[in-house]
Amino acid sequence: MLRVGIVGGTGYTGVELLRLLAQHPQAEVRTITSRKDAGTRVSAMFTSLRAIDKTSSIADLTFVEPDRAQLTECDVVFFATPHGVAMAAARELVKAGVRIIDLAADFRLADTAAFERWYKMPHACPDLLADSVYGLPEVNREAIRKARIVGNPGCYPTAVQLGFLPLIEAGIVDTERLIADCKSGVSGAGRKAELNLIFPEAADNFAAYAVNGHRHHPEIVQGLERANRSGKPLKLAFTPHLTPIIRGIFATLYAPLLDPSADLQALYEKRYAGEPFVDVMPPGSAPDTRSVRASNVCRIAVHRPPGTDLAMVLAVEDNLVKGAAGQAIQNMNLMFGLPETTGLAALPVLP
Amino acid sequence: MLRVGIVGGTGYTGVELLRLLAQHPQAEVRTITSRKDAGTRVSAMFTSLRAIDKTSSIADLTFVEPDRAQLTECDVVFFATPHGVAMAAARELVKAGVRIIDLAADFRLADTAAFERWYKMPHACPDLLADSVYGLPEVNREAIRKARIVGNPGCYPTAVQLGFLPLIEAGIVDTERLIADCKSGVSGAGRKAELNLIFPEAADNFAAYAVNGHRHHPEIVQGLERANRSGKPLKLAFTPHLTPIIRGIFATLYAPLLDPSADLQALYEKRYAGEPFVDVMPPGSAPDTRSVRASNVCRIAVHRPPGTDLAMVLAVEDNLVKGAAGQAIQNMNLMFGLPETTGLAALPVLP
Amino acid sequence: MLRVGIVGGTGYTGVELLRLLAQHPQAEVRTITSRKDAGTRVSAMFTSLRAIDKTSSIADLTFVEPDRAQLTECDVVFFATPHGVAMAAARELVKAGVRIIDLAADFRLADTAAFERWYKMPHACPDLLADSVYGLPEVNREAIRKARIVGNPGCYPTAVQLGFLPLIEAGIVDTERLIADCKSGVSGAGRKAELNLIFPEAADNFAAYAVNGHRHHPEIVQGLERANRSGKPLKLAFTPHLTPIIRGIFATLYAPLLDPSADLQALYEKRYAGEPFVDVMPPGSAPDTRSVRASNVCRIAVHRPPGTDLAMVLAVEDNLVKGAAGQAIQNMNLMFGLPETTGLAALPVLP
Amino acid sequence: MLRVGIVGGTGYTGVELLRLLAQHPQAEVRTITSRKDAGTRVSAMFTSLRAIDKTSSIADLTFVEPDRAQLTECDVVFFATPHGVAMAAARELVKAGVRIIDLAADFRLADTAAFERWYKMPHACPDLLADSVYGLPEVNREAIRKARIVGNPGCYPTAVQLGFLPLIEAGIVDTERLIADCKSGVSGAGRKAELNLIFPEAADNFAAYAVNGHRHHPEIVQGLERANRSGKPLKLAFTPHLTPIIRGIFATLYAPLLDPSADLQALYEKRYAGEPFVDVMPPGSAPDTRSVRASNVCRIAVHRPPGTDLAMVLAVEDNLVKGAAGQAIQNMNLMFGLPETTGLAALPVLP
Repeated sequence: MLRVGIVGGTGYTGVELLRLLAQHPQAEVRTITSRKDAGTRVSAMFTSLRAIDKTSSIADLTFVEPDRAQLTECDVVFFATPHGVAMAAARELVKAGVRIIDLAADFRLADTAAFERWYKMPHACPDLLADSVYGLPEVNREAIRKARIVGNPGCYPTAVQLGFLPLIEAGIVDTERLIADCKSGVSGAGRKAELNLIFPEAADNFAAYAVNGHRHHPEIVQGLERANRSGKPLKLAFTPHLTPIIRGIFATLYAPLLDPSADLQALYEKRYAGEPFVDVMPPGSAPDTRSVRASNVCRIAVHRPPGTDLAMVLAVEDNLVKGAAGQAIQNMNLMFGLPETTGLAALPVLP
Repeated sequence: MLRVGIVGGTGYTGVELLRLLAQHPQAEVRTITSRKDAGTRVSAMFTSLRAIDKTSSIADLTFVEPDRAQLTECDVVFFATPHGVAMAAARELVKAGVRIIDLAADFRLADTAAFERWYKMPHACPDLLADSVYGLPEVNREAIRKARIVGNPGCYPTAVQLGFLPLIEAGIVDTERLIADCKSGVSGAGRKAELNLIFPEAADNFAAYAVNGHRHHPEIVQGLERANRSGKPLKLAFTPHLTPIIRGIFATLYAPLLDPSADLQALYEKRYAGEPFVDVMPPGSAPDTRSVRASNVCRIAVHRPPGTDLAMVLAVEDNLVKGAAGQAIQNMNLMFGLPETTGLAALPVLP
Repeated sequence: MLRVGIVGGTGYTGVELLRLLAQHPQAEVRTITSRKDAGTRVSAMFTSLRAIDKTSSIADLTFVEPDRAQLTECDVVFFATPHGVAMAAARELVKAGVRIIDLAADFRLADTAAFERWYKMPHACPDLLADSVYGLPEVNREAIRKARIVGNPGCYPTAVQLGFLPLIEAGIVDTERLIADCKSGVSGAGRKAELNLIFPEAADNFAAYAVNGHRHHPEIVQGLERANRSGKPLKLAFTPHLTPIIRGIFATLYAPLLDPSADLQALYEKRYAGEPFVDVMPPGSAPDTRSVRASNVCRIAVHRPPGTDLAMVLAVEDNLVKGAAGQAIQNMNLMFGLPETTGLAALPVLP
Repeated sequence: MLRVGIVGGTGYTGVELLRLLAQHPQAEVRTITSRKDAGTRVSAMFTSLRAIDKTSSIADLTFVEPDRAQLTECDVVFFATPHGVAMAAARELVKAGVRIIDLAADFRLADTAAFERWYKMPHACPDLLADSVYGLPEVNREAIRKARIVGNPGCYPTAVQLGFLPLIEAGIVDTERLIADCKSGVSGAGRKAELNLIFPEAADNFAAYAVNGHRHHPEIVQGLERANRSGKPLKLAFTPHLTPIIRGIFATLYAPLLDPSADLQALYEKRYAGEPFVDVMPPGSAPDTRSVRASNVCRIAVHRPPGTDLAMVLAVEDNLVKGAAGQAIQNMNLMFGLPETTGLAALPVLP
């Protein structure tokens, strides 16, 4: 039984980790920290965690002050914290032999200059960063197994990379003309009291945001560049929008085809043939976000818009699961030699 | 491994049965029928059922024409059909030793005259009805264990009965002055192409409906009368409303207290002390429907509105789980001697 | 042309006043204040106010620091502020001959002790309070015409009073057993960055709140007591709920009938025969909130729940219009001798 | 006072025409037809149309059987009908001197072969079609003034054309690489009882649809080709998505810039300087659909996504107003020499 610690459990990725880990047969949450809410039972903050059948150990958890002594007794610690927290705590945990999965951005960008530009803070441990692994299993599975620190991908980057990668890897699209038109549910903004997120502002409304630049842009480009063999730079327009759904990301991706005769459906099916959590849909499909609600699946459909030379890829995921907590547990399973789908096999909730 | 059949699997209770049974370690869906969609794979109709990890047996199911030969080979058959279907098929299945759980109304009302008045059809098998059990485990647990036919309660009746029963059983309220002001999510109306259910009509809107009488009224009254020892008749105002949520029922119940000194909190905690799926919340709580989303829990808070002599009970449930498919599986577990919570322990999905 | 000032225009009642006054042919907003956003154009904060046809004077308004010199040049000043602001400024404005309409609670409760208990602040001007008028035109029309200060009713109190009043005035219900089960859209909580109001918390969710007491309770009781000729005290259970709609209040009201032979439909039609903004629906109707969206109408249907001795009244309004800004303008029209519906005749927005 | 007839008033464009015309000082709806609902009062079908102030003539309207005698007495007839109805009735009305505004597609596509391919019916009157005018005032204002028949643009085509036209007209983009990634509210699908439109399917969900071709594609291409002076063909990827809002279209448009030094903001401001209903937002703006809810405004922001050679245009409109009924009334105003904004100056409803 893996001993699990969670740092910063009061946000949406924190409660989602708890929900998923409660169903994980090989992991037990030993400790969960919150500076602000220390002393509060997790089930007092999140009524949904009150015990079913009065036996759940999750319901008995209480937020505690961050305390390294306890965290160092864990096998693995998840950081569901703001950017900057994990890198400050990483060295001591690594020294103690604890493995780390950071759901924030501290270990996502290999380029510390880019990190510092986008996240407005110096990087605390470039040496550990150099040693960490970007936690996208469909790309880095073997490295993740051995990683001491995993930087769990952002929600948009997961969907956009899984959607574009087969095209980039195959070298059949113009990498200078990529467009990712993305739509996110509101939980992607986190559990924060912000005016633009309140129901009367966000409901019955569709909006673009961050039109002048979004932190996930360099992360996506980094991932796609690693697969880019074209010799040409990779240029990406990335447009995030807010859609009034709670969970879910819908990525509509466009790339000019260099080779119009390519069999895109076969390409995608082959690329993801062995993947437990990537579902390539039948030709002609139009995915929707609810078909992955509360599950770790990313569904992908690939199209050629009539009258164009484009490839169009539609990719959906639950931003809190495959885009955050579920992928983190998938990484944990890999790191500890468990079957990759352990604890992640629940079907999506529909309707 | 229980062999399970489902008759009529294309509605919301059908797909919910599939979702929950996919996670049930002791049950396997052997057959699922649909006259209209015979030949279609369930995962082609409900993308959410496409296999995770390519191993789910649910994803391989195909709707078949109703076929008794196959159903009679099941241990248990769920009817997720319109009213009237189960009673037409029941005799043959019972004869074959198959146990039946009907999610429609055929086996809910003991009074066939009431059934025929509200459902506008003659009852096909009053003798089997007399032998069937009303599937509310918190009331009829022992009888359910031995039942051949279980009439699974309606969604409103489950919440309203669980909310009112402790008061009625204790004889401390005026049974002639009961009010159930209920609010339901739109999935309660079923998976039907009806104009008043389309998004532009139902979204951003709150409405009353069936103000002149609702089929669940006699079912609720029947259940409460069975607990009524007051010697007086039971009179209930039952007002259903439609609220723009997908899943969930919120019942606000009012009853005049005969004994204003009663300790309501203690009464409820004692009544439901052993119940795995009824959660009596701490004093002062205000439940919400999302705290039970996609789970089999009914949460209850009990209050005395300031300045009144009333008891007020707030009860929430997911109409598709505790109000339908989840309770049906709870009944199945009881009927086959399994632990009552088997396959039903997943935590609610929040946010 | 009335010269109008608005104090505190950055909340939902403020922007709604602007929207409605922009269409009012006899009123012109001369000044609008906001301490925090002084210097910002109103159309920069609320894009919806950007000019149509480049001619709207509303779009040219800029928030200014509260400045009495300008306010005293107005004919009427609306306070769309937190509780306590209007009473602090009232004396000087009254002295200057300016008439005041307060959309907060400062001039709603005649009993200053009750005000101080519920709003946790001393009342700044009990003498002006004694002289002010409660701005429910359907009750106080003549007094409003002459009022120097109008306390504009709260959103819940408007719907609940309009719903109950005909029954109380007629003396045909047991005033000790009143129940108001109310449901509000989220804009009723104001334009505030609060965690429980963000979309992922409030969407797809139905909840009760303030179950231990709500500030609108004493206001409703005050209004109903004024009509109560029964000689008995008036007892009311008032339960507010939050429903995921932007605008709208739905009040479901229950009262035991003393005289079961009363013709309730005729009673309501007669009581509201001359009222421009109260619509008594035909017998058997079930109102919905969208039927009054963005309009100043309160629609009412009256019922007798089958099998009970109750009257049940269903009342809907838009909490920002008839429950706030629209009623305030209705009061302004009365105070200045304009036809009562001036500027308020736009039909509801449906769908 | 213009005498107005409406054919087919039971859909969303029909009720929106009624809502807007009720506020139009120079037009009176004389007759409204519905074969299915003849004899029903419009206010019985749409409660929102019940009279405010008991004086509205709209509330007194009753649906009648289509009856040419009455329609020929109108000055203008709106067709808010399925495709094919207007062209069948047009000749007789034109002969009688009645002017026609068709909100369906009969008079949108100049190429009858394209019409017949996409709408699966022969065109009934190619000669009248040749004489009709495409009702986009920002392009065809002068022709509309004189038109006997106006084909009112589709909802997507209005937003996409207004968004792309300045770029195409200026000849500064590669017309072979246009992308329109569009998101529509659910009312765009009409008032139809279809399974995929019901709340439990469409709420809390974001989906693509019609990925293999949409009827608005040829209409958009026709409009853009008319402005295309590049000598090259125009190729457009058009991807419609469904977002869970009631009203609103959000179009995200991408076009490769031929001239990266172009001042896009100035281009758009100049192009739409005189337009009453096109609002070019300040640089850096991100529009949202609610900022145009229930109004006839199309708001546009123009961007250059960082790190690309693209122009990106964000355009929002209310699909039922500028995308349908409002634009139809704008056309009526032009046809009859009224100020273009008559009856259309109400501000958007926010929140």
